[in-house]
Amino acid sequence: MTMSARPALRPIRVGLLGYGTVGSGVAEVLVANREEIRRRAGRDIEVTRIAVRNPARVRAQVAATISVTDQPFDVVRDPAIDVVVELIGGTGIARDLLLEAIAHRKHVVTANKALLAVFGNEVFAAASRQNAIIAFEGAVAGGIPIIKALREGLTANRIDWLAGIINGTTNFILSEMRDKGLPFDEVLAQAQALGYAEADPSFDIDGIDAAHKVAILAAIAFGIPVQFDRAYVEGISALAGEDIRYAEKLGYRIKLLGIAKRRPAGIELRVHPTLIPTRRLLANVEGAMNAVWVKGDVVGHTMYFGKGAGKEPTASAVIADLVDVTRMLTSDPENRVPHLAFQPDELSDATILPAGEMETSYYLRLRVRDEPGVLADITRILADGRISIDAMLQREPDEGEGSTDIIMLTHQTIEHRIDTAIHHIEALPTVLSKVTRLRVEQLN
Amino acid sequence: MTMSARPALRPIRVGLLGYGTVGSGVAEVLVANREEIRRRAGRDIEVTRIAVRNPARVRAQVAATISVTDQPFDVVRDPAIDVVVELIGGTGIARDLLLEAIAHRKHVVTANKALLAVFGNEVFAAASRQNAIIAFEGAVAGGIPIIKALREGLTANRIDWLAGIINGTTNFILSEMRDKGLPFDEVLAQAQALGYAEADPSFDIDGIDAAHKVAILAAIAFGIPVQFDRAYVEGISALAGEDIRYAEKLGYRIKLLGIAKRRPAGIELRVHPTLIPTRRLLANVEGAMNAVWVKGDVVGHTMYFGKGAGKEPTASAVIADLVDVTRMLTSDPENRVPHLAFQPDELSDATILPAGEMETSYYLRLRVRDEPGVLADITRILADGRISIDAMLQREPDEGEGSTDIIMLTHQTIEHRIDTAIHHIEALPTVLSKVTRLRVEQLN
Repeated sequence: MTMSARPALRPIRVGLLGYGTVGSGVAEVLVANREEIRRRAGRDIEVTRIAVRNPARVRAQVAATISVTDQPFDVVRDPAIDVVVELIGGTGIARDLLLEAIAHRKHVVTANKALLAVFGNEVFAAASRQNAIIAFEGAVAGGIPIIKALREGLTANRIDWLAGIINGTTNFILSEMRDKGLPFDEVLAQAQALGYAEADPSFDIDGIDAAHKVAILAAIAFGIPVQFDRAYVEGISALAGEDIRYAEKLGYRIKLLGIAKRRPAGIELRVHPTLIPTRRLLANVEGAMNAVWVKGDVVGHTMYFGKGAGKEPTASAVIADLVDVTRMLTSDPENRVPHLAFQPDELSDATILPAGEMETSYYLRLRVRDEPGVLADITRILADGRISIDAMLQREPDEGEGSTDIIMLTHQTIEHRIDTAIHHIEALPTVLSKVTRLRVEQLN
Repeated sequence: MTMSARPALRPIRVGLLGYGTVGSGVAEVLVANREEIRRRAGRDIEVTRIAVRNPARVRAQVAATISVTDQPFDVVRDPAIDVVVELIGGTGIARDLLLEAIAHRKHVVTANKALLAVFGNEVFAAASRQNAIIAFEGAVAGGIPIIKALREGLTANRIDWLAGIINGTTNFILSEMRDKGLPFDEVLAQAQALGYAEADPSFDIDGIDAAHKVAILAAIAFGIPVQFDRAYVEGISALAGEDIRYAEKLGYRIKLLGIAKRRPAGIELRVHPTLIPTRRLLANVEGAMNAVWVKGDVVGHTMYFGKGAGKEPTASAVIADLVDVTRMLTSDPENRVPHLAFQPDELSDATILPAGEMETSYYLRLRVRDEPGVLADITRILADGRISIDAMLQREPDEGEGSTDIIMLTHQTIEHRIDTAIHHIEALPTVLSKVTRLRVEQLN
């Protein structure tokens, strides 16, 4: 399905501020998934300048075509740069650089939640005056497109409330305290040893990071200025293991939630350990994963789940913002987002595989005569088909009936192999039923 | 935080084709949430024409300013209409109307998954030629913004696979079969009586509806044409209750999944009952809810959950598309999506409430002397504060210690009342510890 080819456009040129975990992730993914990203964005997106404190270290890691400098203000003022990606973090030089980039009419992508939570109103006002885009999907919940869901996906709704597990470190600690019955201090020390918590963990465990994020989410959900300074914040360091156990007995699990709720008199904005019913999906978000629960008056309850931090998930969000900016700088408004996500002349003709070629694992149930050798015959047929068995259940034989059910789970195989094996199994004189075959997906 | 006021723009004029469940939902929500939507979109969105088979019935239900006709082609050709919303459904007249609307350079919003699954490639090609937007968030998974997540939120990723519970009727039936141990036929009859399943349920239970949706999702995920005709489809009508029970014993739950998976040789596109590990969030999506699990190479695993059908959830998606179109027709590209979701001059100054005014329920734990009257004193203090108790646990007293733990869950109250009550409780001579206070959220 090829449409009229469009003329090739020059790449969008990105100036990258900071080359730590996320910065290097952004640069690497832009190279690794270049084709996939170009097919969606309509043109290439290239990092052309990087500003870091130690240029020598970074020069050794990146392509020679990228200019590396220790002068970040040169980058944000460079007329050749289309978009500035700010990944320095913090509220110091990052703020000056953002404002200077905006003053030079650069579009900006940032994952800096502290900066937006504290100085967001100032930054957004400056950007509005200059018609500059400030995109910040990476600032909240890593790769989960929760900013996009709230700003664009749920625009029909009065948002009633939202509640999010938006700090992976504290969720990991709470999961471990519950699973292993260990006290807070011990789990924190483990988390630090594993790299899940910083040497100075107060920013996470005292709830500050979650409060930055929920202040941003609340602004977007309710159409209010960002008001981190008004948030009520309570962390998890005082949480006793016995409360986790008592809560379980009552049918609840304890999570550190960022909550924003509309009330007749105003908005509640708060971060604290919270008991939530164990049966809710949100209660079952474990380890370092993030999830945000949003209640809109029209859509009802929705939830968004994924990795909330780390090199690649955050890079996923930053690059999604870069694609948004690129589509906006490139297309007629009507063609901003291609109907099928990829540009019409960039659809691929990858084959849809026939059913016989599908690869999955299988659940098999069959009724057999309850006598020696039956199972050996069946497993030999499976082995001949190169199908290996992952688990098996055998029902107790029915009284006097002389027959029983065998249930097997196989490892991954190709569908036509299973069909051939079933054909042979059903021909065995000891097999009394058709074989029930269901497919199994591990989702990992 | 008021920015320069923008001149008021005339409303965006919507022509609505069809006024059934979803159509009336769209019209009603556009009126009910008019302010909230205008603050986000930057101008009003108004239904000005409706085409239905029986205009008299609809005229009685809508504002007199809306012109109601039985001539849908008049609506799609009307120069005064900016956007056509197609909610007739099916692949007959809906297709002719869509193509005619596009020929007249109308932007189109539709929730018609059958039409897009079968004739999508033709419709998208026509729209690309005419620079018309075709927006279809409502076609898959109701109000969950999964199309937006895939088209815009995950653009950094090579999508490896996706798996979705994208048909609420079948998920309701499977949940009931498992919970109540009832056979398929009986649950189906119940679902029909409750209105969860159609009188002719084959479209849902044979997996056709899910296959329409997964064909659309696969096209967007992988950048391939829509290929419903190549999908492998197997429904749930042959599913035996005993397989649901055996699967549970093995640690699995059976869901009807729509699966699209990238393999070296091509794409797998399939709908069938599937065993998935019970511990996965997707296995715990019950009843008529929908969820889509997406695995991208950069972001890792993400999940999107919500109501997959019905009047209001689908209206939420249709109106989100209308806001997208409105923002595109209204703004400079740079200002298409406001930084904080609402237009800068439309932020509200709703107060953030002080902590004492927060409303929630509470978990209280305290150590008391194990003697008569203790509990009466505590519950009297709570009653004086108008705090009612939802549940209570009392630990067995420690041997010889003469003291015990009391744990209580309260109903909703205001934080300053709980603080006052705790102050009085801690003053009781029989109370031996500070009161541990945690907040509880039911998330409903």
